[in-house]
Amino acid sequence: MIDKKTLVVFSGDMDKVMASLIIANGAAAMGSEVTMFFTFWGLNTLRKAKKIKVKKDFMEKMFGFMMPRGPEKMGISKMNFGGIGAKMMKDMMKKKNVNSLPELIESAQMMGVKMIACTMSMDVMGIREEELIDGIELAGVASYLGEAEEGNVNLFI
Amino acid sequence: MIDKKTLVVFSGDMDKVMASLIIANGAAAMGSEVTMFFTFWGLNTLRKAKKIKVKKDFMEKMFGFMMPRGPEKMGISKMNFGGIGAKMMKDMMKKKNVNSLPELIESAQMMGVKMIACTMSMDVMGIREEELIDGIELAGVASYLGEAEEGNVNLFI
Amino acid sequence: MIDKKTLVVFSGDMDKVMASLIIANGAAAMGSEVTMFFTFWGLNTLRKAKKIKVKKDFMEKMFGFMMPRGPEKMGISKMNFGGIGAKMMKDMMKKKNVNSLPELIESAQMMGVKMIACTMSMDVMGIREEELIDGIELAGVASYLGEAEEGNVNLFI
Repeated sequence: MIDKKTLVVFSGDMDKVMASLIIANGAAAMGSEVTMFFTFWGLNTLRKAKKIKVKKDFMEKMFGFMMPRGPEKMGISKMNFGGIGAKMMKDMMKKKNVNSLPELIESAQMMGVKMIACTMSMDVMGIREEELIDGIELAGVASYLGEAEEGNVNLFI
Repeated sequence: MIDKKTLVVFSGDMDKVMASLIIANGAAAMGSEVTMFFTFWGLNTLRKAKKIKVKKDFMEKMFGFMMPRGPEKMGISKMNFGGIGAKMMKDMMKKKNVNSLPELIESAQMMGVKMIACTMSMDVMGIREEELIDGIELAGVASYLGEAEEGNVNLFI
Repeated sequence: MIDKKTLVVFSGDMDKVMASLIIANGAAAMGSEVTMFFTFWGLNTLRKAKKIKVKKDFMEKMFGFMMPRGPEKMGISKMNFGGIGAKMMKDMMKKKNVNSLPELIESAQMMGVKMIACTMSMDVMGIREEELIDGIELAGVASYLGEAEEGNVNLFI
């Protein structure tokens, strides 16, 4: 019997990315295969916090500069107020012993959640493989669809 | 044969919550089992309009104060303009005889749509059970995943 | 064996609509049946770029005027800055040989992707059939649910 979950992580908002990772970790803990496909703004989840030296043209540099480098820099989708909302939510999460985004990513990877970065989005946004954290596969929409075909729960976040 | 639909209601925007309730009501009317899992901003859908006296710390009070108390107070995801857009949309809906959000919630509950409030989000955002409308179950991500496992249509809204 | 995909396109943001069309085109190219159900802001994807003369009341005119007429006028969901972001993204896409939104719509239609405009949303927002591009079916939520029932991948975008 198939028991696979796939999540398209399109959003780059801290709260939505967190929801995707909580579902992924939960499903993996319950013994399910999980594939996360990071695309568009969701790609920022996989960026290293440190600036990596790579050759980019002007537009790519602009995009790279304006988008958050990794989950710690992300804002929330509502009431962000220039980062205050994100800070408040992180404080609340810490107080209530909810794992942070980097911790959720690490535990997902440790439990074997497959993380795929969308190559087309990387190309459009000018994000290079070297800028992503370790353990990420690169693939396109056909790969995602192949996985979703086998999934019994497929979400777009 | 399984015929279950599950909806994660993450968004707290009036228009998105309305879409989720229209799908839920439609599916229930067609004889399907439906489970709605309200999480993060979506939780506001289930809040009573009246302020309930409960003990909260400073941050919880802040969150509670800034988030809409119930569907009547929600804005729309685009062109809200401080509530004018939401008001316009409500007027348009009334004129075209589309049910309001509170009516859609009531009819969903009457048709047996299961409504679950996500306990982790309640904890992080400081929302207490007493603040929610009647007939809501409380559960975590494992419960959602158990339901989704049985669903043939699972959406994240 | 069933091999159908359904996509609810709720969003009217260029980037999200693009994601939906890339998935639709990919799935159709892989031999899958695909149904796209355009609702709320997503309806703007199907509007003709040219203003069509139809009778509307004041509120309908307002909505019609404020919403983008077709995919070329849409903004992106993040960093739009009054259209600069959308322009930048379009430039990047062109440079990287990614199809534009109108091209993606055309190829989807050529491959037989079924496009449905949600009648209830059309009614609420005051959009008339004459204002939509050719080849669009009109239907309600029950039709969508019937299609989703048969789908093995159902996404809400």
